[in-house]
Amino acid sequence: MNLILLSGGSGSRLWPLSNSVRSKQFLKIFKTEDGKRESMVQRMYRMVKTVDPNANIVIATSEEQIPSIKLQLGENVNISVEPCRRDTFPAIALSCTYLHDVMHTSGDESVVVCPVDPYVDISYFEMLKKLDSVAGKANLTLMGIKPTYPTEKYGYILPNGKFTEKPDVNKAKKLIADGALWNGGVFAFKLKYLLDKTLELCGTNKHSELLANYENLKKISFDYAVAEKEESIKVLEFSGLWQDLGTWNTLSGALEDRCAGNAVLSEDCVNTHVINELSIPVVVLGADNLAVVSTPDGILVADKEDSSRLKDYIPQQRPMYEKRFWGEYKILDYVKQSDGKNSLTKHLIIWPDHNISYQKHHDRDEMWTFTEGVGTLVINGEKRKVGRGDYVYIPAGTLHAIRAEGENLHIIEVQIGNKLDESEIERFDYDWEK
Amino acid sequence: MNLILLSGGSGSRLWPLSNSVRSKQFLKIFKTEDGKRESMVQRMYRMVKTVDPNANIVIATSEEQIPSIKLQLGENVNISVEPCRRDTFPAIALSCTYLHDVMHTSGDESVVVCPVDPYVDISYFEMLKKLDSVAGKANLTLMGIKPTYPTEKYGYILPNGKFTEKPDVNKAKKLIADGALWNGGVFAFKLKYLLDKTLELCGTNKHSELLANYENLKKISFDYAVAEKEESIKVLEFSGLWQDLGTWNTLSGALEDRCAGNAVLSEDCVNTHVINELSIPVVVLGADNLAVVSTPDGILVADKEDSSRLKDYIPQQRPMYEKRFWGEYKILDYVKQSDGKNSLTKHLIIWPDHNISYQKHHDRDEMWTFTEGVGTLVINGEKRKVGRGDYVYIPAGTLHAIRAEGENLHIIEVQIGNKLDESEIERFDYDWEK
Repeated sequence: MNLILLSGGSGSRLWPLSNSVRSKQFLKIFKTEDGKRESMVQRMYRMVKTVDPNANIVIATSEEQIPSIKLQLGENVNISVEPCRRDTFPAIALSCTYLHDVMHTSGDESVVVCPVDPYVDISYFEMLKKLDSVAGKANLTLMGIKPTYPTEKYGYILPNGKFTEKPDVNKAKKLIADGALWNGGVFAFKLKYLLDKTLELCGTNKHSELLANYENLKKISFDYAVAEKEESIKVLEFSGLWQDLGTWNTLSGALEDRCAGNAVLSEDCVNTHVINELSIPVVVLGADNLAVVSTPDGILVADKEDSSRLKDYIPQQRPMYEKRFWGEYKILDYVKQSDGKNSLTKHLIIWPDHNISYQKHHDRDEMWTFTEGVGTLVINGEKRKVGRGDYVYIPAGTLHAIRAEGENLHIIEVQIGNKLDESEIERFDYDWEK
Repeated sequence: MNLILLSGGSGSRLWPLSNSVRSKQFLKIFKTEDGKRESMVQRMYRMVKTVDPNANIVIATSEEQIPSIKLQLGENVNISVEPCRRDTFPAIALSCTYLHDVMHTSGDESVVVCPVDPYVDISYFEMLKKLDSVAGKANLTLMGIKPTYPTEKYGYILPNGKFTEKPDVNKAKKLIADGALWNGGVFAFKLKYLLDKTLELCGTNKHSELLANYENLKKISFDYAVAEKEESIKVLEFSGLWQDLGTWNTLSGALEDRCAGNAVLSEDCVNTHVINELSIPVVVLGADNLAVVSTPDGILVADKEDSSRLKDYIPQQRPMYEKRFWGEYKILDYVKQSDGKNSLTKHLIIWPDHNISYQKHHDRDEMWTFTEGVGTLVINGEKRKVGRGDYVYIPAGTLHAIRAEGENLHIIEVQIGNKLDESEIERFDYDWEK
């Protein structure tokens, strides 16, 4: 089976656990049978490989998600990288040309497309295999999810193969009575079918050309560009477990524990979930139907029914916690001074044998205190070993880099300067082997 | 009027805003008419002085509260310092001997005793004056609060002057029907009356002797030791505003704003209060009847009705935020290492012209980075000026002190060592003028 896994979106509806650089599909919120935790993207990948160990999986995603994907799925995963966001049709078109031109998949083979974020069990993946096996009998084969309640949240597929965009609840009731199914965003087709569509709609179906021209493509969904116009459609009905994990309300239903992190709930709390990523404790007393989530980005207390309104309330701010190519950091403290000389304190963790790039700052001084691990520090071309208790002062203009040796290297960094973001960093090449 | 203000208690029922070093009576939660904020103790003190500008006020408290009291009420406030906690009778006895021996108050003068923590308006203080004026007509004059609902939270005073400890709700209903009043812990008497009681029950009524022997005194309440045994009692009924601010439920009723700090509530939140002392934002959606409180010590989300159960759930931990004689600090980060070499990061603020004591550590190294203000640093007897961008490494065994000059001095401190608490500090004298 060739499978395109759509891993887009910023997941702001799961703030403060997700932010602009940390999307919901990478949050390790699910417990596996052996007691470990895995993310949505890891769970999907593992389950596809369970039903089809030889599945040819391509992740369709954007550049900023590559570090998280490689971290969670390994270095050798196939990624179709979108240079910018252009909705689902261009993403699927780009992935199909990647399958054909880069992975040399034949146009006669079937392709299944599915989103990364529903919560499903193994029956869903068996159904993907079935879609794969019947793909090509009609131009387009769709999975229709049997509705469990009338809702305005999803699009519907009518028994005649036609589509209806999100209806109101009364119309949804009527649609369900008439046998309509939810559109789960799962499609199967022969690769050639979509390469032809791509040529028709984008003017090319060569991967390199599509990639080079990507930012000029029209933002358009696969439903609108292809599915709604297609006459030759087959729909397979799926009635197994399928939950949308887009909001705290639906997500918490999929969590096994009502409490993650340093948190205490009184015994009488009802349908309440707590996720605490901070080191300080959370205490919840007598709560009913709440999601309580605390992370370095903020604290959310939401009635679960109201959690879909969250996007209107998310504070605009820089991410307080980030994973990068070289490791991760958390902002501990920020003081804005009246004269513009601000100070920012961070806890950096450089992952074993990773390094930050050789760089200098124009506008800020930095003080590093090493609190755990060992590393190689480079200051203006001079290398030296550092470890716990060492420190280095890095005035603006100083070239510097640091690499962790064999284990995590912890640094408390104090920045003092006018601009304390990433925009004033100048990066240089450095040969660590010399 | 001579007034003893009882300022005891740790206020753990208002966690995480209060902790073992930060009691509820010092939290600046009330708005004054000119838009400033004041604490319970400041509000009480100000209102007593409003009804009686010449009132002779003695604060009965413990040693650890002295910095907070002087900070909030000024250096010249009269404090009767309890060497240890011994309940209300020993505290009142000590304060009365302080009035007599230290402040030279005559035994013929009246004394009014009242607790620091009810939320009351000016009518309460007018009533205190009335108690003061009739004190001595009976041995003991009490303020009885007219109950507003049957509750098991308070003791009751019967019309015959007898006391009933906290009854159940049904008994409370009957008591109220019979004309019983709440015991608000307010007493008035002639000073000589209590000096005699003190001699009788403690073996001395000399202040110095009582102080020296304080830790051997029996823990006993004033009600139990004196009031319940007294035959000559007069009760004045008070029916003005009187609220116990002991729990989040009652406290939040006295707050003017539903939101303090960096927080957003959706419009449909009902009877919900948020206090956020952290720099990260709090978002509350669709909440009903909640207290949401976040501080460096932790995060509380409580149904207000359940907030009286809080004491069973408070995590045991060191305070993460503290005010000291010299300033304040906040713990930013703590990493426990498997080999016992831990690291702790703090943001210290030294107040203008204050200093930390000349000291050394046996078990830890410290790195200070100065991020704002100017100060005088002493390292092994050598003085130098420091300011923003300066830093100093202080290995274990180094004598050091720091004083802020003219404005707040901000320091990011990274500690590395086996023991990162106050127990391993050795303090020395230092003459800043030399």
